[in-house]
Amino acid sequence: MGRKTELLLLVVVLVLLLLSLLPFSSLSLNQDFCIADLAAIYTPAGYPCKPPAFVTANDFYYDGLAGSFGPPIKPSNVALGSATVAEFPGVNGLAISAARMDIAAGGAVPLHSHPGGTELVYVLEGSLVSGFVSATLNKVYAKTLRKGDLMVLPQGQLHFQYSVGNTTAVIISTFNSANPGAQVMDYALFANDLPAEVVSKVTNLDELQVVKLKALFGGSG
Amino acid sequence: MGRKTELLLLVVVLVLLLLSLLPFSSLSLNQDFCIADLAAIYTPAGYPCKPPAFVTANDFYYDGLAGSFGPPIKPSNVALGSATVAEFPGVNGLAISAARMDIAAGGAVPLHSHPGGTELVYVLEGSLVSGFVSATLNKVYAKTLRKGDLMVLPQGQLHFQYSVGNTTAVIISTFNSANPGAQVMDYALFANDLPAEVVSKVTNLDELQVVKLKALFGGSG
Amino acid sequence: MGRKTELLLLVVVLVLLLLSLLPFSSLSLNQDFCIADLAAIYTPAGYPCKPPAFVTANDFYYDGLAGSFGPPIKPSNVALGSATVAEFPGVNGLAISAARMDIAAGGAVPLHSHPGGTELVYVLEGSLVSGFVSATLNKVYAKTLRKGDLMVLPQGQLHFQYSVGNTTAVIISTFNSANPGAQVMDYALFANDLPAEVVSKVTNLDELQVVKLKALFGGSG
Amino acid sequence: MGRKTELLLLVVVLVLLLLSLLPFSSLSLNQDFCIADLAAIYTPAGYPCKPPAFVTANDFYYDGLAGSFGPPIKPSNVALGSATVAEFPGVNGLAISAARMDIAAGGAVPLHSHPGGTELVYVLEGSLVSGFVSATLNKVYAKTLRKGDLMVLPQGQLHFQYSVGNTTAVIISTFNSANPGAQVMDYALFANDLPAEVVSKVTNLDELQVVKLKALFGGSG
Amino acid sequence: MGRKTELLLLVVVLVLLLLSLLPFSSLSLNQDFCIADLAAIYTPAGYPCKPPAFVTANDFYYDGLAGSFGPPIKPSNVALGSATVAEFPGVNGLAISAARMDIAAGGAVPLHSHPGGTELVYVLEGSLVSGFVSATLNKVYAKTLRKGDLMVLPQGQLHFQYSVGNTTAVIISTFNSANPGAQVMDYALFANDLPAEVVSKVTNLDELQVVKLKALFGGSG
Amino acid sequence: MGRKTELLLLVVVLVLLLLSLLPFSSLSLNQDFCIADLAAIYTPAGYPCKPPAFVTANDFYYDGLAGSFGPPIKPSNVALGSATVAEFPGVNGLAISAARMDIAAGGAVPLHSHPGGTELVYVLEGSLVSGFVSATLNKVYAKTLRKGDLMVLPQGQLHFQYSVGNTTAVIISTFNSANPGAQVMDYALFANDLPAEVVSKVTNLDELQVVKLKALFGGSG
Repeated sequence: MGRKTELLLLVVVLVLLLLSLLPFSSLSLNQDFCIADLAAIYTPAGYPCKPPAFVTANDFYYDGLAGSFGPPIKPSNVALGSATVAEFPGVNGLAISAARMDIAAGGAVPLHSHPGGTELVYVLEGSLVSGFVSATLNKVYAKTLRKGDLMVLPQGQLHFQYSVGNTTAVIISTFNSANPGAQVMDYALFANDLPAEVVSKVTNLDELQVVKLKALFGGSG
Repeated sequence: MGRKTELLLLVVVLVLLLLSLLPFSSLSLNQDFCIADLAAIYTPAGYPCKPPAFVTANDFYYDGLAGSFGPPIKPSNVALGSATVAEFPGVNGLAISAARMDIAAGGAVPLHSHPGGTELVYVLEGSLVSGFVSATLNKVYAKTLRKGDLMVLPQGQLHFQYSVGNTTAVIISTFNSANPGAQVMDYALFANDLPAEVVSKVTNLDELQVVKLKALFGGSG
Repeated sequence: MGRKTELLLLVVVLVLLLLSLLPFSSLSLNQDFCIADLAAIYTPAGYPCKPPAFVTANDFYYDGLAGSFGPPIKPSNVALGSATVAEFPGVNGLAISAARMDIAAGGAVPLHSHPGGTELVYVLEGSLVSGFVSATLNKVYAKTLRKGDLMVLPQGQLHFQYSVGNTTAVIISTFNSANPGAQVMDYALFANDLPAEVVSKVTNLDELQVVKLKALFGGSG
Repeated sequence: MGRKTELLLLVVVLVLLLLSLLPFSSLSLNQDFCIADLAAIYTPAGYPCKPPAFVTANDFYYDGLAGSFGPPIKPSNVALGSATVAEFPGVNGLAISAARMDIAAGGAVPLHSHPGGTELVYVLEGSLVSGFVSATLNKVYAKTLRKGDLMVLPQGQLHFQYSVGNTTAVIISTFNSANPGAQVMDYALFANDLPAEVVSKVTNLDELQVVKLKALFGGSG
Repeated sequence: MGRKTELLLLVVVLVLLLLSLLPFSSLSLNQDFCIADLAAIYTPAGYPCKPPAFVTANDFYYDGLAGSFGPPIKPSNVALGSATVAEFPGVNGLAISAARMDIAAGGAVPLHSHPGGTELVYVLEGSLVSGFVSATLNKVYAKTLRKGDLMVLPQGQLHFQYSVGNTTAVIISTFNSANPGAQVMDYALFANDLPAEVVSKVTNLDELQVVKLKALFGGSG
Repeated sequence: MGRKTELLLLVVVLVLLLLSLLPFSSLSLNQDFCIADLAAIYTPAGYPCKPPAFVTANDFYYDGLAGSFGPPIKPSNVALGSATVAEFPGVNGLAISAARMDIAAGGAVPLHSHPGGTELVYVLEGSLVSGFVSATLNKVYAKTLRKGDLMVLPQGQLHFQYSVGNTTAVIISTFNSANPGAQVMDYALFANDLPAEVVSKVTNLDELQVVKLKALFGGSG
């Protein structure tokens, strides 16, 4: 073993030793907040916390929903920006997060639900129809929203938006979870390997319809 | 005012007086449990409690999932029995409930989710495929289950079951909510007055397909 | 007793009888949502629910944060609009709400905290400094925010905003509670009957300073 | 109907009318706190709230644990004072409560658990042994406590205390529930109508032992 | 240092390096679910999550309650199978779990409670008596259950079952916790090192009775 | 590489290997409790748990609030002892903790709030005035407390105590959180680097007053 290899080896071992000691000096004496350490392993309550000594005002701040979001996703014509714990580690453990949707004229936020939280829609620009279908009653509650309007969409229930008029509608949505999740019906049915035959069986959609949409959304099976 | 009317009036007034006094004598000194008073007004935490003095062992008991359930619902060929707080008041405030599904040969529990709770499936008889689509990863997790097997289906995420083999598959499912709710995709899309045009717009289903299924599920629009 | 009085009495009694029977027919079979019945008595979990049969799309909708809010409150020069459960019954039981603040040039949202929830600030217009003081570490985290920026302010910790530049700064804040509450330091110290001597004793403020601000905020003592 | 009867009737009706209107004017615009209205019907989240306008400082105050408690309960030689929601309505919805136990020399707080909360013991006077048996590991954790010592007893696990020395030991215990409940093993087995044969079957205690203790604790069967 | 030792050393160091880097690449971008990593250190909210990339349908599935369970435990004549987070990592963070009990003719599930969750009993086969003693009211609620019947047993309160008839009674119980715990009275009193004298003092059982049962259950002291 | 270096290296590597294997043998099969491993990284639900095998009765015990606390903190003349998770790891995950305050004659616990929990005050010695200002109603609720009295102070709302009479008043406070936090108004305003100009702007205090108190409490800016 050469001199250089030996030195390298020693450095590596020392770094590892230091790493293994690190937790013993991270004594976080409080929980005024818990900025996510995204590199640590997730727990059912969120990410472990970044040591308070390394926290700065920037950790409570996120500017990723300002400005523009590039070309809208097809076929919905909606551009999406998210500020959940994965993008905005400051909301970890605080049960709050946000997202922005820019719905081009003629576009629609496809039918989806959030398994982990309730959504509060606030309209920044334009006009849109926003609605949800209540789970047990199976009733549709829909409203035309304009700039400054709010609409609440209860947790886990299917909802949608589509723009009305000739301009892009922009909404900022907030959630009472740092990680509300989103289940888009089209993706769930047509963008994975769930066999077309099974999709048809459990949805009563015609198999031809399923095959056509699997082609559109990139699913196999 | 006749003698009879007076008496009737007095009786009515006394009954009302007693009713208005009733709460003042219902001092429930504990909450070992809280059997739902289904006639009282729901709160975000469940139903107000039946006075402890009137509670008997029967309130903790439910036999409505035993025996048979009549003809299966069409087109899924599944018979459904529920033991949520509406049928089984004893689970009120205890965050637990159950349901039984009898899936005839060739039948399928249609794609649905429970906005309010996680489901634990236990197979009583027969064989079935049980699967769910994870919300964010959009991945399908499906298994063939046999008698005595368990499968857990996380809250608010779309899942389905269909029988395999020539016999009826029977499952008992439990939930960690007294009122988990259930949102069946077919009902949400095709069994209410959500216009076919809107369904098509927010799901990318062909409008003809939507119209066909609205006819099947009794929706208008 | 005259004929008319008798009839009136009968009507009154019948109305009361019907009212006393009403709850027995309000069987709300689900809790897809729980629109607040603001006339009912509050519980630790929120208001009892309006019967589902009377719920319409309007219950999930609130337009009170659109438009303008009249003259700013003195001396802070901030106009405030709230969409908590008291104004927006649809958020009852859903653990979410919102508020809008229009901070005139030179104005400041005075130091306050929300005992019941975390706040997520989103800037609609203008520029402002937003900051909070962490409870245990006693450290200040402040940022200059611009249109489209987000800042999270953890539950129960003192925070403030003040506009920068020559234009009104407008923010929409959301909370993970339908009723987050707000404790404004100036009001707590100077706008009630807490004696000036006590205020001075427990804050170390000079008594003259306390007396001066009690005059400004309308407190006695 | 006599003049007096008529008047009485009118008064009664007016009172009822006022009572039926009362809720409509009780608009509690906030939940800074929720003093229990013990006369109202319990919900899974606690008692409905007393209207804020009637709340005074006394509602947050309880002096029932000061002073002495009369002769100790036999055979344990412990005097017990409680400050749970039933005695101290101010803790309603706030998930906290207290109890005081005066354990005479030679006395013992009998084996019991609190289904609804964790207990924190603080020693006011004297010395005692305090211990609990962990549920799953089935291990005993016991300590001799002296004036000023704390011990935490996890929710729902069996624990006990007995005095050591020649003086009364006094403890103040607090709970993280307004209504923690208490299940005393002796009462559960020997102070109700659970048949001695069943007690013996499910505890492996000799039936003679059971009969002897049923006589002591007043149970039948 | 020989060539072979050097190589071994390098491999070891590289493995360690990779291990230390692993967390940095385990970025779990969502929490659709959180399969327990049983090798990681428990937190108050459950186990940290297995990286989503390694999750398969098998993680949501458990067949350990199917089939037979070997000879019943003495002296209760009950065979027990558990599907809590320790055996079924898929329920981690989902607040649900299950257990199966096969109660031989003449057998009894001994008196116990679950500190961490409510139990819902479902009868698979045979007949049994199931009962609980409410904590505060100290009242017994017991029912004879038959195939298909449900009974709910509130969190933290003592309950028992015993078979009736000549056949084995089989029940599947579910809990609203991934880790409900179980405190069996006989084990708590007689299967550890709690001194017989102390057991007698805090239960009022005769010391001879305690000594006899300590011998049966293997306790010392 | 010398013989000695080689040996050292091997030892180091073996230690690291053992450390990396450690978690795989820490299988905590239950959560009867979760003693904080203060050296591990905090999560939003508290500290990871010390392995059950290393837990002893001492972990549930804390004697740091007994005895005396040294000279009172200036200028409040209050000595403070804490038993939150940082000092008393046994309360981790159990949502309970305590603190003791010795308020010298003429002293005052300065205005503060606990963002994370409700406080229950119990008077050990002496007399004091205890009060809080309700957040939304902005009303003062204050009482003179004597030995043995209790007062509840709702979460996140400003409160204070000051002794009355010529003796030290001693209180033991408990909280329904293992880590309630404490935000002292004087520290938040005057003991950090929040510029005096900003403090003045957001509190309406005269800047001279702010500068004077910054000098007293050691703040800069």
